[in-house]
Order: sequence, then C-alpha cells, then structure tokens
Amino acid sequence: MKANAHFRLLEENYLFSDIAKRVAAFTQAHPDRSIIRLGIGDVTQPLAPSVIAAMHRAVDEMGCADTFRGYGPEQGYAFLRHAIAEHDYRAHGIAMEEDAIFVSDGAKTDVGNFADILDTDNVVAITDPVYPVYLDSNRMAGRTIRFLPCSAQNGFVPCVPDFHADMIYLCSPNNPTGTAMTRAQLAQWVAYANEHHALLLFDSAYEAYITEADVPHSIFEIEGARTCAVEFRSFSKTAGFTGTRCAYAVVPKELIATNQDGSTVSLQALWLRRQCTKFNGVPYIIQRAAEAVYTPAGQKEIRAQIAYYQENARLIRQGLQQAGFTVYGGVNAPYIWMQCPGGDSWQFFQDLLEKTGVVGTPGAGFGAQGEGYFRLTAFGDREKTKEALSRIAKAF
Amino acid sequence: MKANAHFRLLEENYLFSDIAKRVAAFTQAHPDRSIIRLGIGDVTQPLAPSVIAAMHRAVDEMGCADTFRGYGPEQGYAFLRHAIAEHDYRAHGIAMEEDAIFVSDGAKTDVGNFADILDTDNVVAITDPVYPVYLDSNRMAGRTIRFLPCSAQNGFVPCVPDFHADMIYLCSPNNPTGTAMTRAQLAQWVAYANEHHALLLFDSAYEAYITEADVPHSIFEIEGARTCAVEFRSFSKTAGFTGTRCAYAVVPKELIATNQDGSTVSLQALWLRRQCTKFNGVPYIIQRAAEAVYTPAGQKEIRAQIAYYQENARLIRQGLQQAGFTVYGGVNAPYIWMQCPGGDSWQFFQDLLEKTGVVGTPGAGFGAQGEGYFRLTAFGDREKTKEALSRIAKAF
Repeated sequence: MKANAHFRLLEENYLFSDIAKRVAAFTQAHPDRSIIRLGIGDVTQPLAPSVIAAMHRAVDEMGCADTFRGYGPEQGYAFLRHAIAEHDYRAHGIAMEEDAIFVSDGAKTDVGNFADILDTDNVVAITDPVYPVYLDSNRMAGRTIRFLPCSAQNGFVPCVPDFHADMIYLCSPNNPTGTAMTRAQLAQWVAYANEHHALLLFDSAYEAYITEADVPHSIFEIEGARTCAVEFRSFSKTAGFTGTRCAYAVVPKELIATNQDGSTVSLQALWLRRQCTKFNGVPYIIQRAAEAVYTPAGQKEIRAQIAYYQENARLIRQGLQQAGFTVYGGVNAPYIWMQCPGGDSWQFFQDLLEKTGVVGTPGAGFGAQGEGYFRLTAFGDREKTKEALSRIAKAF
Repeated sequence: MKANAHFRLLEENYLFSDIAKRVAAFTQAHPDRSIIRLGIGDVTQPLAPSVIAAMHRAVDEMGCADTFRGYGPEQGYAFLRHAIAEHDYRAHGIAMEEDAIFVSDGAKTDVGNFADILDTDNVVAITDPVYPVYLDSNRMAGRTIRFLPCSAQNGFVPCVPDFHADMIYLCSPNNPTGTAMTRAQLAQWVAYANEHHALLLFDSAYEAYITEADVPHSIFEIEGARTCAVEFRSFSKTAGFTGTRCAYAVVPKELIATNQDGSTVSLQALWLRRQCTKFNGVPYIIQRAAEAVYTPAGQKEIRAQIAYYQENARLIRQGLQQAGFTVYGGVNAPYIWMQCPGGDSWQFFQDLLEKTGVVGTPGAGFGAQGEGYFRLTAFGDREKTKEALSRIAKAF
C-alpha cells in the first residue's frame, strides 16, 4: 500500500513531544533540580464540585438497567446542545439554533477534522505564529497554505490579505501570542470572508479569559458571520476538561459551499454526514459533566477557577515586565508571549531551563515569525508560578 | 470555499437515521403498538459493577488537586495499553508490544480515520454486504472501491480476489452477516496481503462472541499478519461501552508503506503523528473504566453479559429456524442474518414492523448483495427478544 505522501511535509516531531524529550534529558542529568512547567497549556485545578457530582450521578445511571444509556446521538445529547445554545449564545443576545451545535471530544479533534468536508484545492490562510494543528492538518491533506505574518508591528493580529484565500483559521484570544482581536478587526475578516466566499474557522477556546469589553467572545457577535464562519469551543480551558474531553463546533445552516459544477451544498449537512460516519458521540457521563458547567453553582465554581488562572496571567505579565522583559498577551488570554533575550527561542528555552528549571515553549515551534519569542502559560499552581517568576527575576 | 466533491457519491442518508425515521413515522401513526428494537447493534445491559466502581474512583481523583489529571498521552495511558497487551494478546500466546496499541474513543472513529495516513490512489476492497463506515469513509476520500461479493454460495466469507487491492477491510465475526472466518480462510488473506503488499484492516469488534475453536479472535493469531494487518477492537460490544466510548487499534511496527518515490515509511509512526495532531486522547475516567474490564471481577461480570447476549442469539436463530426461515450467523456473533420472504428487504422491514412491531435492519442497507436478507441483533432484553420471536412465529 502507498502512504499519504503529504505526511512527508510535516516536521518530524510534534512540538510538545520535542519539549518533553528535552526536559526528560535535563531531569536525567540533574535529578536534584526542581522543574516548574509553564510550557504546555494544561490546567492544574481539579474539576468543579458540580461537575464531579454530575459525573457520579451519571455513572450510577450507567450501572442501572432502567437508566443505562447506549449509543447517543452522534451530534450530542439534546440536553447539552440546549444548554450550550442557551447559555453561551442566547443569554448573550446571539440567536442560535441547537441543530448548529455539534458536541465533540475536543476542539483539537474538530479543528483537525473539519476540513474533511472541504476540497483539498482550497487555499488555506493561517497566521504565523500559529497553533500547529491548523498547519499540520492541512499539510496532511495536501492543501496550499499561505501565511499571515503576525508580529509586534501589527500587535500580533493578522491583517486581511491582498490575496484570495478559501479557508482562514483565526484564533482569538490567541494561542500562542495571548493577544485578542477586537470587534472592528473581526468585522474586517467577516467582510473579507463574505466577499471572497471564504470560510473563517474561528477558534475561541480561550474566550472565557477575555477581560476587555471590546473583544468578542464569539464570532457570531459580528453581523454577517453566520454566512462565513464556523466556531470551535471547548470545555478544556473553561472548566478544566483537558483530561475529561468535551468541546463543540458551531456550524450555522447559512454556510454554503460550492461544488465543482457550481451547485451548492450545506456545510452543516456535510459535517453531520461526516460525524455520523466517523464519530459515535461523546460519553454520556462526560456530556452530563459538561451540562453541569452551566448550572448556577457550576458557573460560580468555574468562574473562580478562571479567575485563579487570570490572576496567574496578571502575575506572570507583571513579573516579567518588572524583570525587564517585553511582554504581550495575558490580559484576555491565559498565555503570555515574551520577547527572548538573544532572539533564539530554542536557546532561550535551554537557558531558562538550566538557570531556573522553568519550562516554557519556544516561539519558533509555532512558526518562523514566532522566532525571538517565548510562551508561558497561566495554568500552573499559584505558588509554583510565583516561584518561577522569582527564579527568573534572579537569573536574568 | 469549495466542498469535498466526493461527498456527492454518498447515499443521502445514513442507514440507521433512515430506519429511525421510518419507525418514528410508524409509531406516530400507531401510538398504541409496542415496538421491539432488534435493529441497531446497541447493547442494553448496564455497565458491570467493577467498571462502575472504577469510574466512581476516577471521578473522585478528578475532583482532588493531588490526583487530578489534565491532558493524557494521545495514544492512551500506559496502564490501559499494558492491560490490553497483557490480557487480549500475551495471555493468548500472541507477542504484542504496548507501543503498537492506540487507545481511542471508538472503532468507528478508528476505522473511519485510519485511511488518513494512506494515499487516496490506493485501491480498496470491501465486502458486499458491508458495515457502511468502510465504504463511506473511503468514498469521502475519493478512493476506487472494488467489492468482494459475499453470499450464501460462499458462506458470506469473502474470497481472495483475482485483482490487485492495496487495502482490504475484513470484519470477523461479521457485521452484518454474523458469520466468521476460520483460521484457514484468514491465512489465505494474510498470504494475499503479504504477496500484494496490501494492508488488511481487520475489524474484530465482535471477537468476544466467538464460540468455535477454529475462529481466531485476532488477526495476529495468523503467522505473517504483523507485516500486513492492523486490528480494530472495541469495548462497546465486549463490555457494553456503546455509550461510554473506548476502543483501540493495533498497529504493529512491522507495517511499512511505500512513498511515491519508492522510499518506505512506518504506518505506526504515521498513525502516531496523525493521532497526536488530530486527537487528544480518551477521558481519564473512561480509560480507568476500560482497565477495570480486565480485573478478575470485571472479566467474570462481562463474560456473564456476553453469555446473556449469546443466549439471545441462540434463541433468535432457533426461533427463526422453527418459524421456517433460513438463517445464518448467530453462532460466533451477536447478529443473525435471515433470508427475507419475498426477497425485498425494505418491504420485509415494513411488513415485519406492521405485523409484529419488531424493528430489524434491511440487508439492502449494507450493499447490493445484502438485498434479500435481514439482520436481527441479540443485544435486546431477553423477555422482549422472546416476545419478538413469538410475534414473528404467529405472523409468518
């Protein structure tokens, strides 16, 4: 059999595996040194009590013949899709029908798989630096990729390009730069997409971290977005579900793609067909866990968790500034993007590890334009985060 | 943006959605009639006590800072991969390294996604009748598909073809026909695949239902399979996980695909890269649930569940034979495949529904060669299954 040749265009290693190997080598060489991990964007706070209680109830249901659940709907249970539409959209004045919501096991999965329903001839635009999944999943499919450079000059916000793109991946608040797009900036993209009959693949996994009024939580706050955008959201960073696995995609019925003969087709119908063929839904227990996030008690609990990480972000931003670094992000996002002294981000990764035991992520791992920058995350334990900042202040 | 044009080759509706609509129309017209669902292959027995206990423990771990788990390994936790390798392979005399095991959320997902790593130029062979996912996922990718006709003449076992195929999907014990391939028959396929440098995609989701000694539980019982086969297994039918979602794929390191320039690449490496890019692992709680299946108590409990469904299969087979039908399957599988009176399987679906309220699956939904046959499943409640047989005996 022949391999998918497009895989040859991928970098050999996945960024975080690479980092894990380097850290493993360091700890083997220095078993006495204490390591503080602010590299990968993984949460550390336990699941909220309301979520835990909901899961215990659901586990009990699964152990009893009368309440046992087998296959659920591929698109997700109605109770969860209703809670999502109601709390994440309608409560914020955004009309949203439940048929547009597709529950899944992760935004990474959705972002990686969504292009299955789109032609491989489409031209893809992604930012540089970028979350590697947008890049790698399109490389695997053999699509032509154009980069939208983001730098300190444009505030790490991608400008609408002067070329035609069919699919544009936008992430706001951004991973890795921690910056966020304003209403006016997103409106430019919606206008571009509608004019070019392009699709915006909008990743708002970090919307819960927004603090500024001018930054939209959803692309559907922008008029015209329903004809040009899908939105990916996740419970991972909102409710600590990185190891619990639940997310959703919003695919409005107004999204229409063109076939080669000029006829048109609904993306919602295509995505439903894809999911019904290649996916069997999220565990019932996990969907009940996600539902509990929307209860009054659940909301209060997760807001406290988010506030904890937001305070970490504020401390990291402030600590690095006080230590003399130039920093971006951290205001509407759990990521802080700092300029590397020396400019070589893998070198800085190694220096930081050796001098302080702190693990971050080199900007070069996110693209050519990421070189010279370094990402720290606010998802750590408070005391360890403070300790990391104290070590950095002493070492640099 | 342009749509993936290959989706136009798919049937408009997914088989089981189609059936659900017809049943809904019937119940709306006849609200007083009692329906017995032996159509979709969904389990009905609650999860085993050991599994329930393991999930409660894991939920508690997730609620406590010291034992909370964030992102796990994309490939699955070592504790589960170890249990799988040990109990499903080594205990049966099959050498198996844990690196070859990839834990996932479902065999449907794995079967649907695996071809991502293979060229779209590969020629695919699938049986007719067939589990629709093999067909639809390859149609979506635009591959050329050749059919291997299965009928009463060849005992519903596909013969090695006289043409070249690069990828062959085999399902034994078979969905939908309930038949199973012997050691000698599988050995012919392994020989064909090694000779043609083809890949066998072996779906053994129903291996727990095998009763005859001559039917292998794993393709890796056959010498030479490690150079030509991947295996898909699931906890869905083995431990009632259809709504709990856990499965695994086995991808031996000996599997080598060819690039267009003649160089070679490891399928295990490609699949790892694909999963690390487009998947983020199975929930920790669910992996602990799956692990509990392998404890002595868990094994005893699931064997009792499987025996319950096997007895249903025996009763259906016997009841249909006594009612004068010609039946296949049901001995090594939870599916019974019966010849339709009249020969039109959608007509028989409607007749059966109207005369008895029993829902089955028309063979035509599984392919052209499925026409004239009808599938019943053994996953129902015992009393309802008996009631269905009694109604059928009276009506036909």
